[in-house]
Amino acid sequence: MSGRQTIEADWAWTGERFESGVQVVVAETGRIHALDRGAAPTRRHERAALVPGFVNAHSHAFQRGLRGRGERFPAGSGDFWSWREAMYELVGALDEQELFRLSAQAFGEMLDAGITSVGEFHYLHHAGDAADYGFDQVVLEAAAAAGIRIVLLNAYYATGGIGQALAGAQRRFRSAGIEAYWTQIERLESILDPRTQSLGAVAHSIRAASVEDVAALHAEAQRRGLPFHMHVEEQRREIEECQAAYGGRPMQILNETLEIGGNLTAVHCTHSAAEDLTRFLHAGGGVCVCPLTEANLGDGLPSLSPVSLVADRLSLGTDSNARISMLEELRWLEYGQRLRTRTRGALRDEAGEVAPTVLNAATAGGARALGLPAGRLAAGNWADLAVIDLEHPSLAGCDAEHLAAGLVCGTDNEVLLGTYVGGRWRGRGRRFI
Amino acid sequence: MSGRQTIEADWAWTGERFESGVQVVVAETGRIHALDRGAAPTRRHERAALVPGFVNAHSHAFQRGLRGRGERFPAGSGDFWSWREAMYELVGALDEQELFRLSAQAFGEMLDAGITSVGEFHYLHHAGDAADYGFDQVVLEAAAAAGIRIVLLNAYYATGGIGQALAGAQRRFRSAGIEAYWTQIERLESILDPRTQSLGAVAHSIRAASVEDVAALHAEAQRRGLPFHMHVEEQRREIEECQAAYGGRPMQILNETLEIGGNLTAVHCTHSAAEDLTRFLHAGGGVCVCPLTEANLGDGLPSLSPVSLVADRLSLGTDSNARISMLEELRWLEYGQRLRTRTRGALRDEAGEVAPTVLNAATAGGARALGLPAGRLAAGNWADLAVIDLEHPSLAGCDAEHLAAGLVCGTDNEVLLGTYVGGRWRGRGRRFI
Repeated sequence: MSGRQTIEADWAWTGERFESGVQVVVAETGRIHALDRGAAPTRRHERAALVPGFVNAHSHAFQRGLRGRGERFPAGSGDFWSWREAMYELVGALDEQELFRLSAQAFGEMLDAGITSVGEFHYLHHAGDAADYGFDQVVLEAAAAAGIRIVLLNAYYATGGIGQALAGAQRRFRSAGIEAYWTQIERLESILDPRTQSLGAVAHSIRAASVEDVAALHAEAQRRGLPFHMHVEEQRREIEECQAAYGGRPMQILNETLEIGGNLTAVHCTHSAAEDLTRFLHAGGGVCVCPLTEANLGDGLPSLSPVSLVADRLSLGTDSNARISMLEELRWLEYGQRLRTRTRGALRDEAGEVAPTVLNAATAGGARALGLPAGRLAAGNWADLAVIDLEHPSLAGCDAEHLAAGLVCGTDNEVLLGTYVGGRWRGRGRRFI
Repeated sequence: MSGRQTIEADWAWTGERFESGVQVVVAETGRIHALDRGAAPTRRHERAALVPGFVNAHSHAFQRGLRGRGERFPAGSGDFWSWREAMYELVGALDEQELFRLSAQAFGEMLDAGITSVGEFHYLHHAGDAADYGFDQVVLEAAAAAGIRIVLLNAYYATGGIGQALAGAQRRFRSAGIEAYWTQIERLESILDPRTQSLGAVAHSIRAASVEDVAALHAEAQRRGLPFHMHVEEQRREIEECQAAYGGRPMQILNETLEIGGNLTAVHCTHSAAEDLTRFLHAGGGVCVCPLTEANLGDGLPSLSPVSLVADRLSLGTDSNARISMLEELRWLEYGQRLRTRTRGALRDEAGEVAPTVLNAATAGGARALGLPAGRLAAGNWADLAVIDLEHPSLAGCDAEHLAAGLVCGTDNEVLLGTYVGGRWRGRGRRFI
């Protein structure tokens, strides 16, 4: 029992509310052994609250290198496509060392933001046509160096647009066919640190993979028990191109072609038709929204309805990492819907509460999307926690009943005292007892 | 010269860009004596940047008491009007002591957010019908205690809706006629601390003052050289009620009735018609946007066009203070327009830059709206500064050229090291040399 520890704070988020007196007993394995009450804690955070570490279900870590860049518009207004040109410029300039540096920087900032797991949607595989996929390992190493849990969502990328050859920097994304893709997945499996690393399968988008390839990849991911992610309907243009090529919207095609289930996460769905999204959710699919990136890129606001159906399938991602704050993301998940519908409480649950929906999207929902035993304080899950400073001025006046809503509406990274990843503490240099 | 100090950091925001080697020479009066170069600084902030202290052009400080409250929707979705009921409940419960406490708390958080001046749009004048306006002085005292510069935008409030009597908690807002209003303004003038306090005139809204009263108040404010603020077209319902009562939209009525000029700021303009807004801006009026509050309340996104006209007349407010972050406000000022127009760079200036527009809205634009010599590092202005931590991880990789955009897109309160108000330093307890 020597490696067992018991962590306590004044309050702990148990998925629906903050409860007092909850102790998290962490086994030497880094998993939660049990929740306890009334035991003597080995570590007690005073005037603090525990929440499950945030799960960032969609990130492109290297894009941290664009912060403050691509924000100049001398030739008139920009959009996703003009931003992508700036991103491709960065892609073309990265070597392994710089990719490591930027990724570790992004992952470190995520930990400061209370994010303990990242789903790294990774498509920058190598420095050119030579398909050694050397960059994949670099991202794993950067995550290990930063100390964050990673699900490497390794992306299949074959076309530069529907039926088009890869061009320019896109060649660095190239997967050399389905078979080579799975060979690389197996190679990666062999080098993972099982305590903090796992894998997911990805078809980048309808732009980058044919429908046949998407279907084949997804079926094999299901067979292997891997989560499967895909960018879906972020841009209107890709919907139009898909309709022209395949006679249907991307989500429509996915609904008709794949065996939709719990392993499938569609990222963005900004322009998804209500009927397509409803069918997708009914079949068990999940949706990952990235509010800060989707606003920065001028993409738009997804129509997250019916709320009763979607609320339980939501996850959140920091995507371009132009800013890294899960508290801002979850706030604007709800606020975006308020702006869209001109009503308050858009994502309210049956009790009329909004905070549980968005806090769960940032924790349990992300864990579900990544196939991780995490995101909730429960025996068997990884002991991944974020510690909230209840003495921070921004939380003054928020009692236990109003703490969740106060956290959601009124705070940001500055209320984070630190995180536990698999029971391993990483503080922000402030109070710790 | 004993009281003179010279403040320096690596970079200083001069309204269009960050420049190196700029020293701010502060006179004993608390004003900027001159900008210098190459002198020996009395205070140098290492690895830091100076920006003019943010100017919060629209706040209701007492609403800080609602943080985490009014965010429960058991009876279905809410809106501004249902939120207002929760706000009125707080209003009905406040005494002078609690008003002081909540106001000082809000003002202290503002300083932590780099806000050195607040335009406090103040309509909670007393505890009931008795019009001694005792609460006005309490707000000034709270600002003094916190150490923030305040422009008390003292609000005239006479009706509970167009042509309706005040009811319930609204009675605490009551102004006993135009004459009594100016008598109180004069009384307040006599107790101001001229180094940090000034006044502005306000008609709360078309709901709370008749068009005749608005016109009379505005004319007198102009005569006295006071800024004049008014809530305008935040809610569709007030536009409809105004059309029914006066045969025109509120902004239309203002354009036709008032001598619009630089002293006039319309707050929100969420639902303003393009033709009304254009006429208002052409006449010299200004617009104060409150992105976090307008999103929290589900109000919607204002149509800020034509950008070339509006960019120079924008200010920002934290309004309900559900969250206090000027960096988040200015980010979402641009992001809101990106979401509305589905393009990036909505508020770009002639050089194609967005950061100067939104940084200036948060500084010079706010100062203009409040009639303050502030918001820009220039001789004669108050020495109000915010100090940015360039060693903060969120700014890593942002060189001088990309610092402004990095600050706008990628950071929040946590990059603030502290503020100067009238040359008086208030740090956040971190590095200071």
